[in-house]
Amino acid sequence: MSGNSFGTIFKLSTFGESHGKAIGGVIEGCPSGLSIDEKFIQDELNRRRPGQSEITSPRNEKDQVELLSGISEGISTGTPIGFIIRNEDQQSKDYDHLNDAFRPGHADFTYLKKYGLRDHKGGGRSSARETISRIVGGAIAKLILKESGVSIKAFVKQVGEIKLDKGYQELDISKTEESIVRCPDPIIATEMEKLILKAKEDGDSVGGIIQCVIDNVPAGLGEPVFNKLHAQLGHAMLGINAVKGFEFGRGFESVSMKGSEFNDQFVKEGDRIITKTNHSGGIQGGISNGMPIFFNVAFKPVSTIMQDQTSVNYRGDEMVLKGKGRHDPCVLPRAVPIVESMAAMVIADLLLISRTNRI
Amino acid sequence: MSGNSFGTIFKLSTFGESHGKAIGGVIEGCPSGLSIDEKFIQDELNRRRPGQSEITSPRNEKDQVELLSGISEGISTGTPIGFIIRNEDQQSKDYDHLNDAFRPGHADFTYLKKYGLRDHKGGGRSSARETISRIVGGAIAKLILKESGVSIKAFVKQVGEIKLDKGYQELDISKTEESIVRCPDPIIATEMEKLILKAKEDGDSVGGIIQCVIDNVPAGLGEPVFNKLHAQLGHAMLGINAVKGFEFGRGFESVSMKGSEFNDQFVKEGDRIITKTNHSGGIQGGISNGMPIFFNVAFKPVSTIMQDQTSVNYRGDEMVLKGKGRHDPCVLPRAVPIVESMAAMVIADLLLISRTNRI
Amino acid sequence: MSGNSFGTIFKLSTFGESHGKAIGGVIEGCPSGLSIDEKFIQDELNRRRPGQSEITSPRNEKDQVELLSGISEGISTGTPIGFIIRNEDQQSKDYDHLNDAFRPGHADFTYLKKYGLRDHKGGGRSSARETISRIVGGAIAKLILKESGVSIKAFVKQVGEIKLDKGYQELDISKTEESIVRCPDPIIATEMEKLILKAKEDGDSVGGIIQCVIDNVPAGLGEPVFNKLHAQLGHAMLGINAVKGFEFGRGFESVSMKGSEFNDQFVKEGDRIITKTNHSGGIQGGISNGMPIFFNVAFKPVSTIMQDQTSVNYRGDEMVLKGKGRHDPCVLPRAVPIVESMAAMVIADLLLISRTNRI
Amino acid sequence: MSGNSFGTIFKLSTFGESHGKAIGGVIEGCPSGLSIDEKFIQDELNRRRPGQSEITSPRNEKDQVELLSGISEGISTGTPIGFIIRNEDQQSKDYDHLNDAFRPGHADFTYLKKYGLRDHKGGGRSSARETISRIVGGAIAKLILKESGVSIKAFVKQVGEIKLDKGYQELDISKTEESIVRCPDPIIATEMEKLILKAKEDGDSVGGIIQCVIDNVPAGLGEPVFNKLHAQLGHAMLGINAVKGFEFGRGFESVSMKGSEFNDQFVKEGDRIITKTNHSGGIQGGISNGMPIFFNVAFKPVSTIMQDQTSVNYRGDEMVLKGKGRHDPCVLPRAVPIVESMAAMVIADLLLISRTNRI
Repeated sequence: MSGNSFGTIFKLSTFGESHGKAIGGVIEGCPSGLSIDEKFIQDELNRRRPGQSEITSPRNEKDQVELLSGISEGISTGTPIGFIIRNEDQQSKDYDHLNDAFRPGHADFTYLKKYGLRDHKGGGRSSARETISRIVGGAIAKLILKESGVSIKAFVKQVGEIKLDKGYQELDISKTEESIVRCPDPIIATEMEKLILKAKEDGDSVGGIIQCVIDNVPAGLGEPVFNKLHAQLGHAMLGINAVKGFEFGRGFESVSMKGSEFNDQFVKEGDRIITKTNHSGGIQGGISNGMPIFFNVAFKPVSTIMQDQTSVNYRGDEMVLKGKGRHDPCVLPRAVPIVESMAAMVIADLLLISRTNRI
Repeated sequence: MSGNSFGTIFKLSTFGESHGKAIGGVIEGCPSGLSIDEKFIQDELNRRRPGQSEITSPRNEKDQVELLSGISEGISTGTPIGFIIRNEDQQSKDYDHLNDAFRPGHADFTYLKKYGLRDHKGGGRSSARETISRIVGGAIAKLILKESGVSIKAFVKQVGEIKLDKGYQELDISKTEESIVRCPDPIIATEMEKLILKAKEDGDSVGGIIQCVIDNVPAGLGEPVFNKLHAQLGHAMLGINAVKGFEFGRGFESVSMKGSEFNDQFVKEGDRIITKTNHSGGIQGGISNGMPIFFNVAFKPVSTIMQDQTSVNYRGDEMVLKGKGRHDPCVLPRAVPIVESMAAMVIADLLLISRTNRI
Repeated sequence: MSGNSFGTIFKLSTFGESHGKAIGGVIEGCPSGLSIDEKFIQDELNRRRPGQSEITSPRNEKDQVELLSGISEGISTGTPIGFIIRNEDQQSKDYDHLNDAFRPGHADFTYLKKYGLRDHKGGGRSSARETISRIVGGAIAKLILKESGVSIKAFVKQVGEIKLDKGYQELDISKTEESIVRCPDPIIATEMEKLILKAKEDGDSVGGIIQCVIDNVPAGLGEPVFNKLHAQLGHAMLGINAVKGFEFGRGFESVSMKGSEFNDQFVKEGDRIITKTNHSGGIQGGISNGMPIFFNVAFKPVSTIMQDQTSVNYRGDEMVLKGKGRHDPCVLPRAVPIVESMAAMVIADLLLISRTNRI
Repeated sequence: MSGNSFGTIFKLSTFGESHGKAIGGVIEGCPSGLSIDEKFIQDELNRRRPGQSEITSPRNEKDQVELLSGISEGISTGTPIGFIIRNEDQQSKDYDHLNDAFRPGHADFTYLKKYGLRDHKGGGRSSARETISRIVGGAIAKLILKESGVSIKAFVKQVGEIKLDKGYQELDISKTEESIVRCPDPIIATEMEKLILKAKEDGDSVGGIIQCVIDNVPAGLGEPVFNKLHAQLGHAMLGINAVKGFEFGRGFESVSMKGSEFNDQFVKEGDRIITKTNHSGGIQGGISNGMPIFFNVAFKPVSTIMQDQTSVNYRGDEMVLKGKGRHDPCVLPRAVPIVESMAAMVIADLLLISRTNRI
């Protein structure tokens, strides 16, 4: 519980700072007999990579993963999969001016309070570069889920005040990757891009919402009472950098609904029992009911901005921080695969655990 | 990870169905030397008890806890504290008509899908009666936190569309317990009560939002990257029955803020470094920064309503469900101590773990 | 990890002191659909009960278990099974003279050092009365294993210097319960009884060895590298009061064997591949190979003796401790079901986990 | 619980096969502020390295560790320490003849049964090469323990039938490293070497016993009832390749002692309360009592021998296995640092956990 492991049976343990030698981890509990498609893993990493478009950080990192164990002739052997990604484009001197400053919105102050010292280079462990390891774990989880037909797709639903105000059922999510902002609606996507470029121009940053839809989850996943499916998903999402909120199904909207409106009615469709509406978001009593699972993740605006900000240093002296470095004005586009990865690890773990539910 | 344990060092494991013999649990990791105030624990249970006011379920359950171990002469010994609460006012025949129905919004269908069979009486394990055990764990966690001066106070911020639209700083939270709806603003509280009574009259139910404020948390709690303080809190809250969303600090609002607006500026105040604003909600990089922690928890309207609803039974035959039984039209007032309890367990656990952070 | 939980999927959490109100626990992860034979559970408890014969403690405790949840109409529902056993025959005054003495061989001193205070009555949590909860967990684990045909049988192999010097293959283990000492060889059993009665007469105590044989375990159980099957078994056994050693297969004898002697040769027998000899004790590389698993557990002589002993009190003053109270001169006969119970929980847990090993 | 993680607060997760790209792991929960002496870590690895003397395998592996994170300017930062050791001297063709053979005494058969497939090269994950990662974790644990003055020293006590028949108190353990066999008595050491060389000459192998002594452990470590200090140590030791038994204090000898002989008498010595004898091995009731902790670990003879052996292949056909490859005739000398490493991780973890025992 030192916070760097995630999962019970399918479990990822990670390490690595933004400006250290490497990022990496260990994936335990990947079942044997799985085809490990290395190209797919790298493709997933590329979706998270900086420098992929004009609205992301211009840092140039190849983020090339090296898989070190647990695979023989392209097939998982059941033993742990170790992996590393070397850090390359480290411009540590970018951070020299930060040596003893507490950057507003960052974790400099809290890491120092926690550990009594801190690695000041580029945010150290609190850098979002850490999420690379989550992509690797998530990609392998997706390969497991593919065997069961489960699909996980996230997209950008809101940037600043630009909203994609449609239900997931009305969208063609397959178009998400066609826009650099990862919004499946091309018109809204263009507006979002403009807003992000405007923020960049202003040396400012913007937040937003990612929605994730999980299709074809078998009914029966989730471990109440404390590890309800949505509690696990919420835990997973809230652990991603810059996330400030999580809701599933009708979420915060449901608070002003009546029970008679909210309750999803069970009906028979062919052989299956489904619900007519899906306000529950595919989860009832903390267990999947076979309907699509959907949830929203709220991201605050990026803390690093290219404007002067007032702060204090370690000694408490007031100081002015200049905006410097190479950063994203909006993390949402690159956070889409991270949301999917965390969701995939949750579902894969619960799917494996569910095999132990009955005698 | 079968989902009935919560915590790492301070850990609660629970058992019990609504209509079985008893509810109870084991609290491990309570440090030795703590004064165990049994009256306080019972008072906390009474805050959750049904029948406490005209806006809650009229069920009459004493919910009397019996502490069975781990305490000698009123002091914790460091060994596990076992406890039970006998179930008393079981009217199982209330549920006979439900034998093979899937109640809309309930976990009947999902438990059946998960386990292949289910205890149909009163929701079984999925009943909110399970949360009694959380109150006992939470009360002991509060006693631990009291030693460190940490205080945890929750209140009802919204019922249906009636909102208490003020920041926690502007409220006198000490007044929360003066209203039966547990809203610290007497005027809004009255409106909320009316709305709840109206729903009751209509045989319907309403949802709402609980806000929780944690004061005096030392800086340095939280275990990134996966167990960030807010990820643990979110996990804890999302595990409570009927919860659909969680946000901390400015939460979902932050998505339409600019970085330059959102970033909390560090300033020196006396000996301490604090932030001028608290949009972060007391947590940065997943670690407490010493400012008040605050978060919102969204509850959907109660699933059980006193109206006829269409559903299907186990065989998929359409049927009509009559509204029967004794239920709350709104769970918010009784959920306030549950939110506090879960928060207390998270903070107590992280406080103990933080003792291991430095050499 | 506060030490009162055991297992990963099938998990037992326990509480209770010898002279408190009750002993009990929570069993999580029992699969749904299992017939819970309450009489069998009570029979297992009776095998551990004091007062069962002239060679055990004359304390009279009924040790009647009450199952509180997780079972509906005799079938497990998949939700946790809570249980308690009330303490009855507490003669706490037996312990008044011990208030501030450190009894030799007991945990008085170490509990005080650990927790700064201790419950002095009857050993508190360190009393072997705690093992009652293990029997309940073990009995349910045995019911799970019965479904897979796995059988677990332990017996007393040595008391003091009286040894049953035969391999498990040469014994009729079904006769174990015919002797009060639980040794399957009637002649050796009689000698053991005499030795125990002699020790009792002398106000002294004796140790011994229990052997456990597990038949029909499917090949493939065990989770290397750290949770090898025998490492889990060893952990389980070494957690039982008074245990000083654990060995499996040829154990300590193997150190003076040559590799050419020790290696078990694989041969085909019908459809199965088996080993000609079983020096490995049914486990290779930490994983079961389908052969019988067998291991030995060494128990030291009981610490409580009816002789005067010199010790010191809390202040370090020398004092003489009189032998008083009602104790077993030898724990081995009553420890047989405890060894079986712990083994059953290990195998049941690994059996459930093994369902997640392959895609 | 897929078996590749060890520890609760101080936790090691490992990966790697003998003939894959690399071995490595993640160390979580190392407290911040610790000086990380990289030379010490490498020295510990060198103690385990093959090719260090004429009685070990002639394989030539540098086993050079690369620390990848969690350290800034030589000081631990509190974040996880990732590390890898590249595999170098892989002669996979040595194993080509083994493709479909079940080597006697090895884990080929059981891995295949568990996972349905296996990596046949050099034992894959079941190779003792995996223990390299344990040395890295153990070295860092030793650095933590050094801060508390705890010292851990293991030595070879027996090889085949050659025994060092003295108590740890009578030995000058500081001389252990002076002999290639790691026995502190030079005369016995020479005999052991001869026996090992004789086994090598015969193409055979021998087993033995390692004793480990832990000095200066504070009283109060250990987490009963399931995680007693010796249960954790036993778990740790039994997880090491080739281990068949574990005993602490007087261990198996204690079974033929009387209680009146075995009980260690408490006496005051200066300010401290100690025990006159130490039959308990420094642990009472599962908790350290401040006396030296000592325990024995039994190793079977190495499975790989240079003689022809009869076995079967995957299809069950009888076949003859030729003795080939480069192996140790006796693992004891190289296992000494592994025993110490596992013990160090157990004690470091319990030391950190003990900080949470009292209010």
